[in-house]
Amino acid sequence: MHLSDSGHDTAVLDNFARRSYDEELGVCSLAPIEDLDVRTQAWQEVSGKLIESYVGDLLDADFVYETIRAFRPDAVVHFAEQRAAPYSMIDRAHAVYTQHNNVIGNLNLLYAIAEIDPEIHLVKLGTMGEYGTPNIDIEEGWLDIEHKGRTDRVLYPKRPGSIYHLSKVHDSHNIEFACRVWSLRATDLNQGVVYGQQTPQTAMDPRLATRFDYDGVFGTVLNRFVIQAVLGQPLTVYGTGGQTRGLIDIRDTVECIRLAVENPADAGEFRVFNQMTESMSVREIAKVVADEFPGPVQIENLENPRVELPEHYYNVMHTGLEELGLKPHLLSDTLIESMFGIVEANKHRVDVNKLYPGVRWTPTSNA
Amino acid sequence: MHLSDSGHDTAVLDNFARRSYDEELGVCSLAPIEDLDVRTQAWQEVSGKLIESYVGDLLDADFVYETIRAFRPDAVVHFAEQRAAPYSMIDRAHAVYTQHNNVIGNLNLLYAIAEIDPEIHLVKLGTMGEYGTPNIDIEEGWLDIEHKGRTDRVLYPKRPGSIYHLSKVHDSHNIEFACRVWSLRATDLNQGVVYGQQTPQTAMDPRLATRFDYDGVFGTVLNRFVIQAVLGQPLTVYGTGGQTRGLIDIRDTVECIRLAVENPADAGEFRVFNQMTESMSVREIAKVVADEFPGPVQIENLENPRVELPEHYYNVMHTGLEELGLKPHLLSDTLIESMFGIVEANKHRVDVNKLYPGVRWTPTSNA
Repeated sequence: MHLSDSGHDTAVLDNFARRSYDEELGVCSLAPIEDLDVRTQAWQEVSGKLIESYVGDLLDADFVYETIRAFRPDAVVHFAEQRAAPYSMIDRAHAVYTQHNNVIGNLNLLYAIAEIDPEIHLVKLGTMGEYGTPNIDIEEGWLDIEHKGRTDRVLYPKRPGSIYHLSKVHDSHNIEFACRVWSLRATDLNQGVVYGQQTPQTAMDPRLATRFDYDGVFGTVLNRFVIQAVLGQPLTVYGTGGQTRGLIDIRDTVECIRLAVENPADAGEFRVFNQMTESMSVREIAKVVADEFPGPVQIENLENPRVELPEHYYNVMHTGLEELGLKPHLLSDTLIESMFGIVEANKHRVDVNKLYPGVRWTPTSNA
Repeated sequence: MHLSDSGHDTAVLDNFARRSYDEELGVCSLAPIEDLDVRTQAWQEVSGKLIESYVGDLLDADFVYETIRAFRPDAVVHFAEQRAAPYSMIDRAHAVYTQHNNVIGNLNLLYAIAEIDPEIHLVKLGTMGEYGTPNIDIEEGWLDIEHKGRTDRVLYPKRPGSIYHLSKVHDSHNIEFACRVWSLRATDLNQGVVYGQQTPQTAMDPRLATRFDYDGVFGTVLNRFVIQAVLGQPLTVYGTGGQTRGLIDIRDTVECIRLAVENPADAGEFRVFNQMTESMSVREIAKVVADEFPGPVQIENLENPRVELPEHYYNVMHTGLEELGLKPHLLSDTLIESMFGIVEANKHRVDVNKLYPGVRWTPTSNA
């Protein structure tokens, strides 16, 4: 909708996988999500603009080729992957599903672009989690190094923290290859944890609302804390909460995509942006939410279901998107207050049993 | 056979994929390969030792779990991947097949080990091609770096040259995760280009012969040059032949596996060995073969079907296996002479049309 609103002819491709995960896990978005045709219809009513839709799966190569041939885009914004670390860690089957779905879907798309029109700019959603938590500064995708008196510019070394994050590392390597060997142009957006739920476009009509996930599998940390505060539930901090992550406001996320699309990578260039605007530890995020909430808030430190460093260095370079013109919305009182309102209006929809983490990083013995 | 001969109780798992690629491509090994049951029977006759066999596919998770539970190995030596770069580059379908087969098969194996017995040591076949050709020394899997005054030990950055090589990079990342997060023990053998065709075990009976591939898809460079020399065909050097690669004698390959198995990685350790003993450029390899062959030999420089640097720095550390006791067989006159003999005895089986490269690295337009 942000691209459409900015004057781009836009189409959406969807296999509705995200909706099926809700069915499987017995959860739903805090704010109701309308069907795709209702949403595109509502968008046409409020904006006068058409968003075409193609229903199918990136794993279906014929469908991918047909869609690219039919719409012939200048850019493909690829967000069509399984995106939750805990979902990928449920068990072997979910791990295999995640890596198969993400890696092969992306590979089909790379081939379709290479064979149909290598000028098409791929804007791919990666994640800051690809990097893990190295003890050195996190640069934007590439690293200039000196070793034994010689120098090279190498792909930034990755050490991700889940099967899902690994799938994005695999994607990044495949995309870099496609740029280097087939001269494709690609931008890999290593996105931080997104917070917020409204953009200027979704706010135009309730039927345009986007997801607001609160559950232990798909709910991202700041959104989940806001929901827990309003419900009078403790904010569930995993471990000490010293884990630090990059964050980004949902309004900046959509703006970053516009900036990437309107300023394409060069032919053969694998361009990486760290799509985040500030870093905070999980305990700092909990404190911000607790401080803002008008009522009492309890913070509960749970045993961390993930295997990750409890305290670590974290310093991320993220100048690329700002150089293209991004004006970050930093986390503010106003934003958090407005989120309390959205939660209040929908809190009857919450299943509080789903707030706690149900997925552990260590596999169950099956000897 | 080398492990069995060294006193280990050994079983083999096979889905016969390699034989099916021969059918698909219309080629065959220069030396005939017997069926698996003939080979295990022959081995029992000459050695008195049993090698159990399990027929099935790593993509079949139930089969993997059942096999691990039934045999309960101390170590799994995982060579069960599609192993040819040109095969992976035939087209989109072969690319997807390669990454799916390799990455998911390996993931199933990691889960089976983690859930059944995390003490099992995974010895995984990687490739020197994972590294690509960086402008700095290639270390063994890990790299100590200093960046902006801070230090870290990171996974060595990878920039591989084909969809196949990428699949091994993905495997390495998945295995490192399994070691770090599930405390598995793994050795990743980044193997160079293997040459030679006989080991002391295969030489004990003609029914034990292993593959000797000469075709443009599965034939590795030195073996192919030997075959071309004997057939009176030109040695086909791709491009300038300045591409430099790590090499290893097949007898050292099997010995490296024994050394890795008998000296397991620690729990939680992702250990990487660069399994190669010397480096040579393709034109040097051609010259060695031409010099050794008793008759006239022509060297033909073909347009390189691959996209790779024609000339580059290449300096590889490979001390890990030698520290465990490997005594390398360096490329010698005797070895090459003995290979001429094997080819002479089987040269009536060669289809000379298959000697030339049929697969190009750049995709065909399909607009």
